[in-house]
Amino acid sequence: MLKMKIKTISGSVAAPKGFLAAGVRAKIKKNAKRDLALIVSETPCSVAAVFTSNRVKAAPVVFDLAQVRRRPIHGVITNSGNANACTGAQGLANSRRTAALASREFDRGFGTRGSKFLVCSTGRIGVQLPMSKILAAVPEAFRQLSRRGSDHAALAMMTSDTFPKKFAVECRIGGKRVRIGGVAKGAGMIHPRMNARGMPLHATMLCTITTDAAIGRTLLQNSLDVAIEQSFNSISVDGDTSTNDTVFLLANGAAGNGVIRAGSAAHRTFQEALNRVSLELARMIVKDGEGMSRFVTVRIQGCGSARDADRMGRAVINSMLVKSAWSGGDPNWGRVMDAIGYSGAAFREGRVRVWYDGRLLVKKGHLNGRELVAVKKIVKRPSFQVTIDAGSGKHCRTFYTTDLTERYVSFNKTE
Amino acid sequence: MLKMKIKTISGSVAAPKGFLAAGVRAKIKKNAKRDLALIVSETPCSVAAVFTSNRVKAAPVVFDLAQVRRRPIHGVITNSGNANACTGAQGLANSRRTAALASREFDRGFGTRGSKFLVCSTGRIGVQLPMSKILAAVPEAFRQLSRRGSDHAALAMMTSDTFPKKFAVECRIGGKRVRIGGVAKGAGMIHPRMNARGMPLHATMLCTITTDAAIGRTLLQNSLDVAIEQSFNSISVDGDTSTNDTVFLLANGAAGNGVIRAGSAAHRTFQEALNRVSLELARMIVKDGEGMSRFVTVRIQGCGSARDADRMGRAVINSMLVKSAWSGGDPNWGRVMDAIGYSGAAFREGRVRVWYDGRLLVKKGHLNGRELVAVKKIVKRPSFQVTIDAGSGKHCRTFYTTDLTERYVSFNKTE
Repeated sequence: MLKMKIKTISGSVAAPKGFLAAGVRAKIKKNAKRDLALIVSETPCSVAAVFTSNRVKAAPVVFDLAQVRRRPIHGVITNSGNANACTGAQGLANSRRTAALASREFDRGFGTRGSKFLVCSTGRIGVQLPMSKILAAVPEAFRQLSRRGSDHAALAMMTSDTFPKKFAVECRIGGKRVRIGGVAKGAGMIHPRMNARGMPLHATMLCTITTDAAIGRTLLQNSLDVAIEQSFNSISVDGDTSTNDTVFLLANGAAGNGVIRAGSAAHRTFQEALNRVSLELARMIVKDGEGMSRFVTVRIQGCGSARDADRMGRAVINSMLVKSAWSGGDPNWGRVMDAIGYSGAAFREGRVRVWYDGRLLVKKGHLNGRELVAVKKIVKRPSFQVTIDAGSGKHCRTFYTTDLTERYVSFNKTE
Repeated sequence: MLKMKIKTISGSVAAPKGFLAAGVRAKIKKNAKRDLALIVSETPCSVAAVFTSNRVKAAPVVFDLAQVRRRPIHGVITNSGNANACTGAQGLANSRRTAALASREFDRGFGTRGSKFLVCSTGRIGVQLPMSKILAAVPEAFRQLSRRGSDHAALAMMTSDTFPKKFAVECRIGGKRVRIGGVAKGAGMIHPRMNARGMPLHATMLCTITTDAAIGRTLLQNSLDVAIEQSFNSISVDGDTSTNDTVFLLANGAAGNGVIRAGSAAHRTFQEALNRVSLELARMIVKDGEGMSRFVTVRIQGCGSARDADRMGRAVINSMLVKSAWSGGDPNWGRVMDAIGYSGAAFREGRVRVWYDGRLLVKKGHLNGRELVAVKKIVKRPSFQVTIDAGSGKHCRTFYTTDLTERYVSFNKTE
């Protein structure tokens, strides 16, 4: 396979042609930081989406699950500081009202009729949205729309995040310059397990990705499903799957390429570019995980099934004991063995191998003592990889996670 | 039903007739505390046992899974300071050698031939047992056997425990005085999910219970299974299921009652007494959970199936966010709703009710604001109960857990 030319560019959601963004202060957050983000496309978009599989779904998720089937979609409006979850009929009406207001403002400004908007919320669960503040802020957000506004949009989505998450790439498809850009937020209640119908499999993490590629809705959703699985659905900070997790992918076709067809070279390029954007944003969420001091890649390989690789990885990345040991810079391979043992995955203890940044510490299920000194240094690094080979097959999967620190606990003692 | 007369008595495993115990210093632990516990019955015992369902099973668990089928069993020998897990063939040989030495000492002291012993280990994973220390300490333990030695046995089982766990009751069965007593240890890697075959379902927790009741092996196992489910299999400190979890129940018949028959009044009395002993010991493990500051009872009710009640409870008791909030004295009912939402259990959000020590804070899935002030005080107590009614059926289950504290993390940063 030829190496595809995908280059990183500056900017995020407003890097693709035809997209504009803004982030304003609606005063939903007490700290007077930006808390209302607006992303729009001047022209109508195809939309793909994945939602939390949590049975308790926030009002905006319930609203969007229906809204994504309607079109044309022109944009996404996101508030931070309030999750609008466990808020019943009033919460749902508030999401609907927010979307309707955005639509009215868009139609007024861009001369359209019946534009549709998607909504996202993140913050405290169980409190009604302060609608008067939102109603006042939405028109202001429309006034501030610009290509540079995407930086403000990324800031306005943040809750416990310490830095904004934004990324964009550019590639060539059918002779045309195609761009994909995204913004995202973390940083606690992060263990996304999303799918298109929001159905149970298993953060609040939110992400909006935009592209000017021309691509049909079905293939767009298919591409997003693939991208999500190797990125957002492979991360965990604390093992808690949020009520609000949402990723949107909006494609407005402004690049002018011929519509991308399934299985084509154009599709492969688009998929690779989309994978890159979603993985970069997902990794940023982990790097900004609440209280984290180490970024750990957990590579599972040699499993008998994809399900076993999934179970084994999730047991390790969500184990309080494994994560506490990492925060102390202790390899504690015994706790890793313990976690894979209760994961539910099938394997034989005597075949397990575990590497830390390429150093083989566990061989045939036992300690390879000569590597212990080296591995103890590795686990003190701010970033390292643990590779676990179950020796039972060919299935593999890579996860990204944090350590568990005293700061995580103290941060989450009170909201 | 008549209230059965079961009274708490002092002592533990040597309270039932015919049992003796000891706890000595084998110097396996660096801190020079007692680390080898011996419990014996002067006469042969029926034995029931449950073992960890972790696929990675410590050597003593592998040994005992076979040994419990042999008889007569005369006792249990337990070391702390070393888990003898992930130690391969040598580990297994060391467990076998420890049991054989105990048997030889017993036969010599009590004039028997071919007595059989069970073994338990707890401590660090992946290090071979220091056999020369154990071989020297076992005869010393036999020299120190006495009824009062049970206090030393409870001490010798401890790892991160801050206090010894011991309990005993007395009841009358068939006109005879019957006693049941036990010793146990925690205090991290606690989320036992044990069964008789050690098969996957899901701490190191170890427990030996003794009784002088006369009862056949099948009914003894059946009674233990029932007792375990409502006690040890319903607790969690950190959600990590150990490689070593084991509970033994030894019955020597020395009380002289007629053999207990299934379904009889005697069986009901025995079961209730056994339930009491196992629940008390399980609760002690939670109360001594690593770093804990609050003891929380989580009662799940109104579920459509036993499996749903189990899933819902385990999601709540293992949620880092829920447990962190409790440590701060924050009810954070939204995180509870989030956890039951991703638990995999079926329910309707609009029917959920949640009480904190009897105060209804969540009604129809929403906040009942008038109770918030009262509930905020409740969650600051050292012990409280959260009751969650799914409004979807009649199945229920009660769990016991801790909060998650900075001290837990700092304790587990290095072993």
